[in-house]
Amino acid sequence: MQAYRTLEKRFARISDVESALGILNWDNDTIMPAGAAGQRAGQVATLSVIAHELMTGPDMPDLLQDASAAGDGLDAWQRANLAEMRRLHAHSSAVPADLVDAASRANSACERAWREARANSDFKALLPLLQEVLLRQRDVAQAKGAALGLAPYDALLDLYDPGNRMALIDPVFRDLAAGLPALLGQVLEHQSALPAPLPLQGPFPVELQTRLAARLMRAVGFDTGRGRLDTSTHPFCGGGNDDVRITTRYDEADFGSSLMGVLHETGHALYEQGRPREWLAQPAGRARGMTMHESQSLLIEMQACRSREFVEFLAPLVREAFDREGPEWQADNLHRRLTRVSPGFIRVDADEVTYPAHVLVRYRLETALIAGDLALADLPGAFDAGIRDLLGIVVPDDRRGCLQDIHWPAGLWGYFPTYTLGAITAAQLFEAARRAKPEIPARLVQGDFRPLLDWLRPNVHERGSSVGTAEIVRDATGFDLTASIYQRHLRRRYLDAA
Amino acid sequence: MQAYRTLEKRFARISDVESALGILNWDNDTIMPAGAAGQRAGQVATLSVIAHELMTGPDMPDLLQDASAAGDGLDAWQRANLAEMRRLHAHSSAVPADLVDAASRANSACERAWREARANSDFKALLPLLQEVLLRQRDVAQAKGAALGLAPYDALLDLYDPGNRMALIDPVFRDLAAGLPALLGQVLEHQSALPAPLPLQGPFPVELQTRLAARLMRAVGFDTGRGRLDTSTHPFCGGGNDDVRITTRYDEADFGSSLMGVLHETGHALYEQGRPREWLAQPAGRARGMTMHESQSLLIEMQACRSREFVEFLAPLVREAFDREGPEWQADNLHRRLTRVSPGFIRVDADEVTYPAHVLVRYRLETALIAGDLALADLPGAFDAGIRDLLGIVVPDDRRGCLQDIHWPAGLWGYFPTYTLGAITAAQLFEAARRAKPEIPARLVQGDFRPLLDWLRPNVHERGSSVGTAEIVRDATGFDLTASIYQRHLRRRYLDAA
Repeated sequence: MQAYRTLEKRFARISDVESALGILNWDNDTIMPAGAAGQRAGQVATLSVIAHELMTGPDMPDLLQDASAAGDGLDAWQRANLAEMRRLHAHSSAVPADLVDAASRANSACERAWREARANSDFKALLPLLQEVLLRQRDVAQAKGAALGLAPYDALLDLYDPGNRMALIDPVFRDLAAGLPALLGQVLEHQSALPAPLPLQGPFPVELQTRLAARLMRAVGFDTGRGRLDTSTHPFCGGGNDDVRITTRYDEADFGSSLMGVLHETGHALYEQGRPREWLAQPAGRARGMTMHESQSLLIEMQACRSREFVEFLAPLVREAFDREGPEWQADNLHRRLTRVSPGFIRVDADEVTYPAHVLVRYRLETALIAGDLALADLPGAFDAGIRDLLGIVVPDDRRGCLQDIHWPAGLWGYFPTYTLGAITAAQLFEAARRAKPEIPARLVQGDFRPLLDWLRPNVHERGSSVGTAEIVRDATGFDLTASIYQRHLRRRYLDAA
Repeated sequence: MQAYRTLEKRFARISDVESALGILNWDNDTIMPAGAAGQRAGQVATLSVIAHELMTGPDMPDLLQDASAAGDGLDAWQRANLAEMRRLHAHSSAVPADLVDAASRANSACERAWREARANSDFKALLPLLQEVLLRQRDVAQAKGAALGLAPYDALLDLYDPGNRMALIDPVFRDLAAGLPALLGQVLEHQSALPAPLPLQGPFPVELQTRLAARLMRAVGFDTGRGRLDTSTHPFCGGGNDDVRITTRYDEADFGSSLMGVLHETGHALYEQGRPREWLAQPAGRARGMTMHESQSLLIEMQACRSREFVEFLAPLVREAFDREGPEWQADNLHRRLTRVSPGFIRVDADEVTYPAHVLVRYRLETALIAGDLALADLPGAFDAGIRDLLGIVVPDDRRGCLQDIHWPAGLWGYFPTYTLGAITAAQLFEAARRAKPEIPARLVQGDFRPLLDWLRPNVHERGSSVGTAEIVRDATGFDLTASIYQRHLRRRYLDAA
């Protein structure tokens, strides 16, 4: 037990440093004066190095080995905690310091250049820098793969979605891709037979939007004693542990995108606030990767809050908040606006029917690039072909094509699939929740998320990282992840609705 | 140079951790959700331990010795930097870990109990806990004194006011004490012959107060690109380096105390924002202790902003901010309110004539307690006698007597004298500034602090910790610190004014 106890103390210390970084990063993106940027970068770099040093201290291999050898004395949570310690240590120590440095420099240089290249739609200008990023990511994938016993892309994926593998993703994504073009055609045809949504006349003052957002966060179950809502250019859920800070941005001409954004981030926050208290500062108490995190934000935003039931609750609140009346402010019209399907070029603006197409294309391309089966120079053409095949639209330029996202220039390879895996997981979890608690839809009409949250807490949030994503899904829903429930959800919402 | 360069890197890292702590502490006191308190305490404790470990690493003695041995290659700033490194290292390493721990526990326990003991005016209930604090502070004073070659109280003082010693303070405080009762009598007599200040009718909405405060901060010279103004229960100047965060609290019935508080903290902030840029993250670039810091806040608040000249500028702004007119809103009346003298029991509410009495009593008592010349049980009686002798008022209970301040329960021994040393230094610096730039008073009438700031930058702020407090004062004013200029300032403002 001695070695295990020492490791628990070490990881509690790492948790303190990392949650401090969470607050510093939140501050950076919300309220920090501009002149402090250089200094903040220095603080964040130093604390990141300190966390990395704590994780990769020279005594760590022996501690991990001693704790594992004495593993019989550990209970199930402690064993899971130790397994997560080993995994995190492997990710941190697998990559030699000079490669960490080279990859970090390549990412920084490429990310900086990307902003201009995107604005100019100039893929060629970015190509050499992006090539360097890709080469270093391949090196990282090799090094981590060797340490973790994984294929290269799986080793990258494991950082964002622990335990997930291409072999698990491929069949699910194949099913999804196979059904997508036909489904989209039917949805658009069905939609064209419905009345077009009526416009909502602004302006919607920020102060009123903020008050409405706070009201809805509380309804969903956000604990305001352990978190905040603020404003930033790019919305996120940050902070950490007992201090979960979500952000949004406001558009006075359109309250809907900010409101749905807040509900999305509230889903992330509920997960963070529901993690097992006694394991909060330990690896086993962390949220179980980005797929599960995205499943929680999408379960709240897409499954619950864009449901017809919730919009019944929402409509009078919106009328009251902005002091409006008329047919366009009724639940029917609001719901039609919130479930409008429209194939477009930009992933982050996509509806839930077309969103998977954006991810399927990126997943297919980044796996091929990491494997060396696609030359980076051929990326724009392959990207545009993929979008055309799945969505039937022609990408007009790289700005609205393969240059639109920060992920590849910033070195975030292996991240994209978690968005759509999260959406699929959300549908499967929400269906299981309604099966277990049939009152959930009726309660959403009253704005009461308690039954849903009561189900999510033990089935997802409180499991932390004590088991893998696949096991959480299986235990909670009765079977392995499948695209079919997500597809059924889309058909019900977008084809059966009057 | 090798050892010195290694030390510079080490101290830059310490600066990153400490300035990160500055932001975490600011956040804690301003906007943090209440439920995050436990977690934040853990983060702060962990980062403090990390900073302490960086400062006292096993290689530090050799590095300091090697750098000193090779000192010929260093320029004046580098030599000063190395001297400050040695001093900071001595303070951190002089006290054995178990004593650090015991003192920290004693302070925490006593500080917690103090809040209730103060509310109940119950010194006896606090006595055993305060005795433990005092004993541990004596141990700390002994340990630091041995390491620094200083008498025990001087060793405590050196942490807050580097280089200052009882032998330097005693004659200055003796002069001050000798003149105080007579001066106070004359001031009160003079004041009674003047018209009583007219009351200002509130309410003064927080939003209007905030806008006025921001206007005045900018006028004084606060760089809003490198700092912020926010709200907290107890006003302070925090953050660090390029991110100086000051706070205030608002009272809608009285705008004056918040406004003067903001100007006070702005004085602190100007010092922080004016430190030498190339030494910002090094010991030599730090502010030169609490006496010099308090001199800067009091120079702005007391010397400049309560001057008749500045109130000429202030009066129309105040009328405009709150949309008021009438004789009570004229500069005459405002100035009379801002320079009202009234002996009272509470140090933090004291005017600049009576404030020194509160410090003189505390200084006399804490030096006697550290020396063992006074039993702690006799503190209340000795405290009350001191106040009576200097201010002629009778302390009604310990709540308004020796229990009013957090310093002693929190283990901040050796801190009190810096308040009044700061006030004396402020008067001496302001007189020197006006001698060098006779246009300063006329410019204050226009709200123009540029000439004053132009003098403070090279003479105080940009010197950082490259020389001692005494040397800064001597170089800037032409002679050693003396009470006489402060006394002259008080006579001019409170006896000569019509």
